[in-house]
Amino acid sequence: MIQKPSIPRGTRDFSQEQMARRNYIFDIIKGVFASFGYAQIETPAMEKLSTLLGKYGEEGDKLLFRVLDSGDPFDKIDFASYKTEDGYKTAALSSALCERGLRYDLTVPLARFVVQHQNKIVFPFKRSQIQPVWRADRPQKGRYREFYQCDVDAIGSTSQLLELELVQMVEEVFAKLDLRVLLKINNRKVLSGLAEVCGFPEKLTDITIAIDKLEKVGLKEVKAELSDKGLSKEAIDFLEPVLKLSGSFEEKIAVMREVLASSETGLKGLDELEELFGYIAAAQVKLPIEMDLSLARGLNYYTGAILEVKALDWEIGSICGGGRYDNLTGIFGLPDVSGVGISFGADRIYDVLEGLNKFPAELGAPCTLLFANMDAASAAYVLPIASALRAKGIATEVYPDSLKLKKQFDYADKKGIPFISICGSREAAEGKVNVKNLASGEEKTFDKGDVEGIICFL
Amino acid sequence: MIQKPSIPRGTRDFSQEQMARRNYIFDIIKGVFASFGYAQIETPAMEKLSTLLGKYGEEGDKLLFRVLDSGDPFDKIDFASYKTEDGYKTAALSSALCERGLRYDLTVPLARFVVQHQNKIVFPFKRSQIQPVWRADRPQKGRYREFYQCDVDAIGSTSQLLELELVQMVEEVFAKLDLRVLLKINNRKVLSGLAEVCGFPEKLTDITIAIDKLEKVGLKEVKAELSDKGLSKEAIDFLEPVLKLSGSFEEKIAVMREVLASSETGLKGLDELEELFGYIAAAQVKLPIEMDLSLARGLNYYTGAILEVKALDWEIGSICGGGRYDNLTGIFGLPDVSGVGISFGADRIYDVLEGLNKFPAELGAPCTLLFANMDAASAAYVLPIASALRAKGIATEVYPDSLKLKKQFDYADKKGIPFISICGSREAAEGKVNVKNLASGEEKTFDKGDVEGIICFL
Repeated sequence: MIQKPSIPRGTRDFSQEQMARRNYIFDIIKGVFASFGYAQIETPAMEKLSTLLGKYGEEGDKLLFRVLDSGDPFDKIDFASYKTEDGYKTAALSSALCERGLRYDLTVPLARFVVQHQNKIVFPFKRSQIQPVWRADRPQKGRYREFYQCDVDAIGSTSQLLELELVQMVEEVFAKLDLRVLLKINNRKVLSGLAEVCGFPEKLTDITIAIDKLEKVGLKEVKAELSDKGLSKEAIDFLEPVLKLSGSFEEKIAVMREVLASSETGLKGLDELEELFGYIAAAQVKLPIEMDLSLARGLNYYTGAILEVKALDWEIGSICGGGRYDNLTGIFGLPDVSGVGISFGADRIYDVLEGLNKFPAELGAPCTLLFANMDAASAAYVLPIASALRAKGIATEVYPDSLKLKKQFDYADKKGIPFISICGSREAAEGKVNVKNLASGEEKTFDKGDVEGIICFL
Repeated sequence: MIQKPSIPRGTRDFSQEQMARRNYIFDIIKGVFASFGYAQIETPAMEKLSTLLGKYGEEGDKLLFRVLDSGDPFDKIDFASYKTEDGYKTAALSSALCERGLRYDLTVPLARFVVQHQNKIVFPFKRSQIQPVWRADRPQKGRYREFYQCDVDAIGSTSQLLELELVQMVEEVFAKLDLRVLLKINNRKVLSGLAEVCGFPEKLTDITIAIDKLEKVGLKEVKAELSDKGLSKEAIDFLEPVLKLSGSFEEKIAVMREVLASSETGLKGLDELEELFGYIAAAQVKLPIEMDLSLARGLNYYTGAILEVKALDWEIGSICGGGRYDNLTGIFGLPDVSGVGISFGADRIYDVLEGLNKFPAELGAPCTLLFANMDAASAAYVLPIASALRAKGIATEVYPDSLKLKKQFDYADKKGIPFISICGSREAAEGKVNVKNLASGEEKTFDKGDVEGIICFL
């Protein structure tokens, strides 16, 4: 039976045009990472499930793709023992059948890598990693089951100079991509301090999750949610002006210093913010930056700075985000190692660039010059000329079949090849090469050895 | 409980040093592919199992990594119905639980891609693809469960100019990698012709598999295997001189034309070989190339040219191989589309380069200049200078913590950073920057704005 081919839901093929655009983004990001001394690592697509489980919350565990053990995995299983009235115990039976799962993000693999290779790593460890991750999320517009993350992290120092480097890399990447963005900065310690001084330190998670929704659902809903979570009216009233805080960075800090006067943690957070903003000024960062106390990113492992980037000219969620985490490697047995990192969302950046028509036009053409194929002898004649051009960096094709010229022109046109050369027996006899600019129609003839002349015309 | 972290058997982490070396190989391969007009595509890591099953033989099906369906995959299964006396029916039960599997190679995904997107593709379709593949093979030295393939294929033309391009790309890649290699070429039609004229056309597969082992086990074993497979003594005697064939390309072809005189297929194969070698001469290919009738690569889907590359100065299996296949897309409903392609084995090429010490020395250094950190004020002073250097393409770090200089020198040393700058309050007051070459000990002082001067010294 003939199969009608398709791919799994939530996954994508990338065409040559899409890959050219994706590589444009990746190359810029890689170049910026490298210029700050962050060098690339790669980790396996499959991690042991024991490495992944429990790191992303109960919801995350369900979204892990599990890989069935090879060999005969079923024979060792007593299926009846996993059966309940409501069906099988999915998690337990999955774990019995699957030792491995697909990478869910690049952060847990980083933590695992750092602990596993700690004796060979030079700290502070500045690493970048650009690889796909997989999540069994329900696919929807802009959300995929396989997508790339572009991460950069520095592990083993608490210096705010590392937060600064993240800020600078954000500035560089989006300047090179010609995208106007806003960087929002917050500090988890400030949020902790707020929870502490409003009298509900144990509700920090609820408060930050509610605050994180501020922009999406508005102040009223957030207050309702805080009330649902058990915060008193006084505490909520206390938080309200803080959420409405405005003015310059210095003004905000001054107000916050008063509010957080009784919280050591909160004041430490303000110190960090001030130190970071001092470095940002010293480094002459031009990027629009805003301190935003509503920024929490819902990620409970952040312990210091929280960063998020929004595109200014296109409506989409955050296109980049990260922060500082003080104990990521603790779960793998290496406590008290602080790290800070940020992740660029390549898929969303792609959507913004496409929406704003910001991809460079010349990305389309995989090849500069096509030699048409008149017959086998003429093809043989142009082969060394094509090689000479390639040796000089000019991507060159020789059309493989001596079809009608119309077909060969069509090929050049559809592939966006801007120049064509049609050498037949006469050109071969005279040792000449003609080259035609398909857009302008201009045509020139060169001696076959005049590679420099041809290149000047291209 | 603290986990001692590790990764699944047969998979690997790549350190920054290893990634620099791997990227050196990938970048050369990508550059050569692009110069011939082969542009990159990517396909998802997970394919539907229906796409993968049955394409790699029974053994291959067992080596597929299957991904457990998400949600509650077990509840729909009647496990008892899969039970036999010898245990569960592994294949059937796996398929009931797993809709998806991990990509096993890049060729079947290519065939699926071509059929699925046939209306958008410009033919001949020249595509490259560099992505990992996964196989549940028993791990051993040099054999991994996750490894990269670097494939290049042209689909939709039978022209031998495309075989030539593969030959030229092999030449270019290994010239750029500075590796001496031998390219072996054969043609499956010639092998078919041999099977035909020796009287056992239906034994083609047995004959080619036996011939493929010639180099490994020797003539005697191959003859024994052919006998085991049911070939008559006469047929084996007939094959023997052909396997022992020697001399120049022309001499071999002349002998083969006589032997294959009665086989239309065999003569077509010789025509193709002669056409290809004619183009190779016309294109002035310098690569050592040998016609090798014992080359079969054990892959039954090749129908024309068969190619294989061996390193001349290092003992290892083939480091690159491929060929022509006339009906790859037929299984997905698009018959009569001929393709030809080759795959570079990045892992083996890595091993050869490492064994021969052929990696460029400068790959090691992720960064050119480290600004030491004397204190916060001095760090702030050097920040704009570091930015100016990065803007000129110089990878530059600022050490994040004001630790003892010994520690900071150690960091530069271990990371292979060749230059260090130690600016304290005096340099800041005078507006100066000193830079020291750590290998030679030479030191120079510059005005802080003299970025060009600093770059000249680096």
